[in-house]
Amino acid sequence: MTLSVDKPLLRALHGERATRPPVWLMRQAGRYLPEYRRLRARAGSFLQLCYSPDFAVDVTLQPIRRFGFDAAILFSDILVVPHALGSDVRFVEGEGPRLTPLAGEADLGRLSSERLHEHLAPVYATLRGVARELPDEVALIGFAGAPWTLACYMVDGGGSKEFAATRTMARAAPELFARLIDLLTAAVTDYLVAQVEAGAEALQLFDSWANVLPADERRRWCIEPIGRIVRAVRKNVPDVPLIGFPRGIGPAYAEFASATGVDGLGLDTSIDPLWAAEALPPSKVPCLQGNLDPLALVAGGTSMLQSADRILEAWAGRPFVFNLGHGVLPQTEPENVALLVEHLKSRTK
Amino acid sequence: MTLSVDKPLLRALHGERATRPPVWLMRQAGRYLPEYRRLRARAGSFLQLCYSPDFAVDVTLQPIRRFGFDAAILFSDILVVPHALGSDVRFVEGEGPRLTPLAGEADLGRLSSERLHEHLAPVYATLRGVARELPDEVALIGFAGAPWTLACYMVDGGGSKEFAATRTMARAAPELFARLIDLLTAAVTDYLVAQVEAGAEALQLFDSWANVLPADERRRWCIEPIGRIVRAVRKNVPDVPLIGFPRGIGPAYAEFASATGVDGLGLDTSIDPLWAAEALPPSKVPCLQGNLDPLALVAGGTSMLQSADRILEAWAGRPFVFNLGHGVLPQTEPENVALLVEHLKSRTK
Repeated sequence: MTLSVDKPLLRALHGERATRPPVWLMRQAGRYLPEYRRLRARAGSFLQLCYSPDFAVDVTLQPIRRFGFDAAILFSDILVVPHALGSDVRFVEGEGPRLTPLAGEADLGRLSSERLHEHLAPVYATLRGVARELPDEVALIGFAGAPWTLACYMVDGGGSKEFAATRTMARAAPELFARLIDLLTAAVTDYLVAQVEAGAEALQLFDSWANVLPADERRRWCIEPIGRIVRAVRKNVPDVPLIGFPRGIGPAYAEFASATGVDGLGLDTSIDPLWAAEALPPSKVPCLQGNLDPLALVAGGTSMLQSADRILEAWAGRPFVFNLGHGVLPQTEPENVALLVEHLKSRTK
Repeated sequence: MTLSVDKPLLRALHGERATRPPVWLMRQAGRYLPEYRRLRARAGSFLQLCYSPDFAVDVTLQPIRRFGFDAAILFSDILVVPHALGSDVRFVEGEGPRLTPLAGEADLGRLSSERLHEHLAPVYATLRGVARELPDEVALIGFAGAPWTLACYMVDGGGSKEFAATRTMARAAPELFARLIDLLTAAVTDYLVAQVEAGAEALQLFDSWANVLPADERRRWCIEPIGRIVRAVRKNVPDVPLIGFPRGIGPAYAEFASATGVDGLGLDTSIDPLWAAEALPPSKVPCLQGNLDPLALVAGGTSMLQSADRILEAWAGRPFVFNLGHGVLPQTEPENVALLVEHLKSRTK
């Protein structure tokens, strides 16, 4: 693997200030794009699509062709890892993912990482396919769900407001729950390293449900396992930057950054960019990423550009990657995205 | 109105340190109590119950009788204010509230605060009834939803993950949305003052959806209106402490406290009590309130008591009210609540 530091995204993640911030958007490939909806209409279930390299390569590249982002992110889903471990994962149209809830020791015993790479081979094929077609200056981002967030879906059996089943297991049976987290930590590490071997040049860990935990449990179930993943991935593929996105953890972003040692820190919409500039300086984390309100992108126009400028001004003195604070919403007009990217690319400071 | 500073809750909210922290729990009256479920089975719709003083007085007092909390909180719902202004509010069993979405100028024009107090008279009757029966040392807390959170329910027409309709209106039609927020700000102010006249001795403002907004909009739609309410209520009923609970705003709790001037600051589960001890000292806010994980209360036993002790230790040097970081969950065992209260009352430091 050779390090391509000529790519603006990688430069920023390595802590270099740039003449303009690199930009990509979470869920930049997806339902808001008519070319995605056309492909999607012909294909099968959502999970089948994640395992269809032809489809996934095309969809990953769609927003690069249309908007000229600085990075492509693998089109896939965080639940391919539980699926590869033996969880029963279905996507119910309009309802989100459904899994058979993992309730105890016996269910945990049925999970195995033995066939992880065999199961995920189509994902690696997608990465190889994208890497072949990507313009030279565009970086390829791989990703995985963080252990805590994956465990939430596995134990609660799907999305939830409280993840009460998961949090009850974590409190009532911490040894059992630790075994699940350890299994996921190892699987996610192997998966990320394999993604790099297939062409990923940067990696993002999504801890979407980090916000439901109190401080002590957040330390144990989110921060500590992610720190282990960062260290293990770095040992295997030393120069590949890792971005952590522990959504909704507020002031604990500072602790997360120092304790995990991530290169990039994804900030959610609720974080004031001015607070982040002060509390998360380059000495604490090489690169910030975020955090435009996805609703600003829905609104478009001057209101969107003003919101973007507030981020650009707050972070002008430091390396950062421009992104949203959460994923692109399906009702977003593609022309708003084009206007945003044009605006960002016209900046030269 | 005479101020009863002999009550531990009021002392704490006025910034006095106590030998033990006063305690009450959000949703301390409700479905987890068998005596509540028995009464609830006989009665009508949820909103009808909020307007039935006999029922509401009894339900408000149930947890006081059983556990000996330091405060009773009015049994009601934040949506009685939109209802009193003319919104169509229904509670669908198992689905939560449904409102006819407020979509534009014409819908806003149909709302009126003319019959606010007439509509809410049963709530005031409930407060008078509770005040008569409450033990001398127990304080009575009134409450309202904050304007932003009420607007979310009114414009989106119910609960939501994103509140996309509300946030789109706030961005696309800020003048119209400001009129809605102003109407709610005035109505909430009048409602809170009337609650004090009916017997409430402290007031809490719930801004449950403050977490969905970016910093600049949070300032405009959450913090600024709450500041106006605090100042107006204080002008009318000077010595009644106000508690703000802007859920999920993370580091912005500090800005919220200074900008609104609340007496008490309710912290959600995600906030590290140690961070709060440092970032929110008594010079910034007289009293903290929170923030035990409701799942700790579900788990009970040693794990719950250890989590409680972490809060007690972090805040030992300052005035605070012990509470949860969110409401009591329906699956909570009442005996866990009894154990927690006993534990807190046995502390003398």
